[in-house]
Amino acid sequence: MEFTFLGTSAGTPTRARNVTGLALCLHGPKPWYLVDCGEATQHQLLRTRYSVMQLRAIFITHNHGDHIFGLPGLLTSASMLGRSEPLDLVAPAAVHRFVEAAIGNSDSSLSFPLNFIDSEGENVHWQDQNLRVTTTALSHRVPCRAFTFTERRVERQLIQEQLEADGVEAGPAWGRLQKGEDVLLDDGRLLLSDDYTRICRAPRQIIVAGDNDSPELLADASRNSHVLIHEATYTRDIADKVGHWPQHSCAEQVARFARQAGLPNLVLTHFSSRYQSGPGGTPHINQIAAEALQHYRGQLFLARDLDTYQLDRDFTLVKQEAS
Amino acid sequence: MEFTFLGTSAGTPTRARNVTGLALCLHGPKPWYLVDCGEATQHQLLRTRYSVMQLRAIFITHNHGDHIFGLPGLLTSASMLGRSEPLDLVAPAAVHRFVEAAIGNSDSSLSFPLNFIDSEGENVHWQDQNLRVTTTALSHRVPCRAFTFTERRVERQLIQEQLEADGVEAGPAWGRLQKGEDVLLDDGRLLLSDDYTRICRAPRQIIVAGDNDSPELLADASRNSHVLIHEATYTRDIADKVGHWPQHSCAEQVARFARQAGLPNLVLTHFSSRYQSGPGGTPHINQIAAEALQHYRGQLFLARDLDTYQLDRDFTLVKQEAS
Repeated sequence: MEFTFLGTSAGTPTRARNVTGLALCLHGPKPWYLVDCGEATQHQLLRTRYSVMQLRAIFITHNHGDHIFGLPGLLTSASMLGRSEPLDLVAPAAVHRFVEAAIGNSDSSLSFPLNFIDSEGENVHWQDQNLRVTTTALSHRVPCRAFTFTERRVERQLIQEQLEADGVEAGPAWGRLQKGEDVLLDDGRLLLSDDYTRICRAPRQIIVAGDNDSPELLADASRNSHVLIHEATYTRDIADKVGHWPQHSCAEQVARFARQAGLPNLVLTHFSSRYQSGPGGTPHINQIAAEALQHYRGQLFLARDLDTYQLDRDFTLVKQEAS
Repeated sequence: MEFTFLGTSAGTPTRARNVTGLALCLHGPKPWYLVDCGEATQHQLLRTRYSVMQLRAIFITHNHGDHIFGLPGLLTSASMLGRSEPLDLVAPAAVHRFVEAAIGNSDSSLSFPLNFIDSEGENVHWQDQNLRVTTTALSHRVPCRAFTFTERRVERQLIQEQLEADGVEAGPAWGRLQKGEDVLLDDGRLLLSDDYTRICRAPRQIIVAGDNDSPELLADASRNSHVLIHEATYTRDIADKVGHWPQHSCAEQVARFARQAGLPNLVLTHFSSRYQSGPGGTPHINQIAAEALQHYRGQLFLARDLDTYQLDRDFTLVKQEAS
């Protein structure tokens, strides 16, 4: 499983950071999945190996502009490229209205079916052959969700002693059983994959959270997850100055939660544009890392635009440098 | 007068060219004016000396997405920066509806008054103390306009012999007359600036055209203009292949018109993303220049993102390299 940050700035873009967007895939970028779509997400994609032609579904955490204003451009560009594959858009109803108004008032039409799925419905989930996506309600100024991506097909190991005991001969049936298929033999016997294979590891699982002032809402989702990607808009001191109303998290809050939940990997993102990256800049982005490290002992990362992370089958998260 | 290209690609962005946007100012960037606002216009501004805080008015040529999808982000970013000055938006009614839907569906509100002015009304024009802006209807798939920017205050020269003949003594009155003000003297006489000054040169004038398949519609506007900025989406061969329906111009068409109209400076922009800039790329952007030069003998430029041009008081147009 792999993901690439397309934007890591809160609210407004900076010269170094775009507003929110994240590309995720299981086995290479065909197909891939997009979480949030701030303005210029399509521009950022031009600097990655992801193409709008292979995008399977878009998940929008909430309807704030820095998470959705890139949708009209991305969708109409896909259309100009001649996309015909249907595309799912899992988002709050207000986002559907925004997209429809953008298309309707710009003399546009889409060359592919866009399937709206209301993310704020009851027990919303989504899946294809690769991934299962579940949602968790968060706490923000508007309804907001986290999306948990779980891989669906984990490698199976054949239970050879069982196959031999039941007289199933080595051949194509073994291969199909190993892929998780049930097999009907010529002699009329139905072999269930579950009887002749064992699953050797847990499925990989990543939480991509939207804006949220209450990380503890992710306690259940975190139980079997290997990575949490969560906003840390501020350090504690700035958060206290700004006050409660933006309903964002500070680094300390998220780090404390991740430690308590036993999450092995935490990636912070969605930083206030006041944080500087250059030498001597103040407040400096490193203060966010320093604050988190006081409360979290797992593997901590601060996201940067176009950085790619790979979650291996042994649940190790490895950062690849931006190309 | 000065202008900077914020985007020069037609329809979709490329790695080198953003979609359409142009910043224009008279005396430095306070205030300045924006023509069209494709997605990521606010991102491009971060690489110029223009700030949304000093933006006086936005002019939208037509409602296609590559000319308007940057509006929601630009407006809400200005709001997050705390802008309070009113902002005029001269645009077709559909653009007003798009902006209102974007703001209304993203939990946004603006910290400043946004004044909608319908660009498709009768004889629409706009002015402030610096510039007068008039419109010309073009021919495209949707209603589309060119905006002609004319400087309003041209330097005046005092007619000394007239001042002396009428016994107007040298002093503050002379300075005010030279600035174009009428002056009431202590002795009750009203001196009209026009009687005691002469205007030494024509006002500078620049046409910024939208998408258009009939450059000849700009014949009247061109008469006193020093620069025409016009799309040349294709070369003739590609235009013939694509056919009439997109209703764009090819380089030959615009060049022929500019020659006939006697325009001294022609800047082509809005190039189809198929044109390459790198060595050996085909079709190459240089083909657009080569085609135009066969038909036009004035000063020809092909726009590039972030290139700035200055129109001097002697009507010379000088390109400054992108910083």
